[in-house]
Amino acid sequence: MKTKTLEELFHETLKDIYYAERKILRALPKMARGANSPDLKAAFQKHEEETQMQVERLQQVFELLGKPARGKTCPAIDGIIEEGEEALQAFANSPALDASLIAAAQAVEHYEIARYGTLHRWAQVMGMKDAAKLLDQTLQEEGMTDESLTQLADGSINQAALQAA
Amino acid sequence: MKTKTLEELFHETLKDIYYAERKILRALPKMARGANSPDLKAAFQKHEEETQMQVERLQQVFELLGKPARGKTCPAIDGIIEEGEEALQAFANSPALDASLIAAAQAVEHYEIARYGTLHRWAQVMGMKDAAKLLDQTLQEEGMTDESLTQLADGSINQAALQAA
Repeated sequence: MKTKTLEELFHETLKDIYYAERKILRALPKMARGANSPDLKAAFQKHEEETQMQVERLQQVFELLGKPARGKTCPAIDGIIEEGEEALQAFANSPALDASLIAAAQAVEHYEIARYGTLHRWAQVMGMKDAAKLLDQTLQEEGMTDESLTQLADGSINQAALQAA
Repeated sequence: MKTKTLEELFHETLKDIYYAERKILRALPKMARGANSPDLKAAFQKHEEETQMQVERLQQVFELLGKPARGKTCPAIDGIIEEGEEALQAFANSPALDASLIAAAQAVEHYEIARYGTLHRWAQVMGMKDAAKLLDQTLQEEGMTDESLTQLADGSINQAALQAA
């Protein structure tokens, strides 16, 4: 079992992001409901659908690894989402609410970009080509989601946040 | 006070990353001590020096905002660093230890990239040019640190993690 230890690390990290994705899946409808901008609402709804697909891809990776799809508590995503929920409450009825939701969502995206980037590379080194491909698909999607959130912020939402309530 | 609410959001997020940077500053020496690879040790030591400078830049941004430099608990970085410490314990004496440390450090980097990216844009929208410049300097540094960690992982550390203990 030459690859055992990297495989264990890969498996632990897979459980971490699996928990994270399912937690994100529960948070996104709240963020969509909270958002004022119809474009931002639509972006969160679209990302919810993508996240569902990303969860399914992770289940395929677990299968390729020969392990049951199981999560383990991920304090990082718990903390990131807790901050998003705090912002949702603290900035409700403020013109800066949508800007704060985008900031929270981009912190989530970057956590995922870090984890999928790492998992993708490990899968390559371990010679798990199919798993690497699945992980890379999600990595690319997360990058595009992050970019589209930046465009929404730059396009109108940060300017709108400057207006008086 | 037309800009008040975005300014409040900016201030809250500044306190968040100020707490995070000082927590990272305390975590980096532990990561450097834990790392096996001399190159990875050196990378963590270099980043500790950069982080010290980044803390000072944040103090300058607080000053430009006319507020005292004060942090507020950031559950996101607490969670991210908690995961790094768990990995340090779980993979001690494993050939995958350094790979796990890089993964933890890249999760930290991406949290910072998300926060500095957001703060930089908000400073621009608020017309705080000097603050925007300081925040962008750090944003660029974090991106380079993340890239150099990827290079270390690709160069030798992920391959080394495949070796039996």
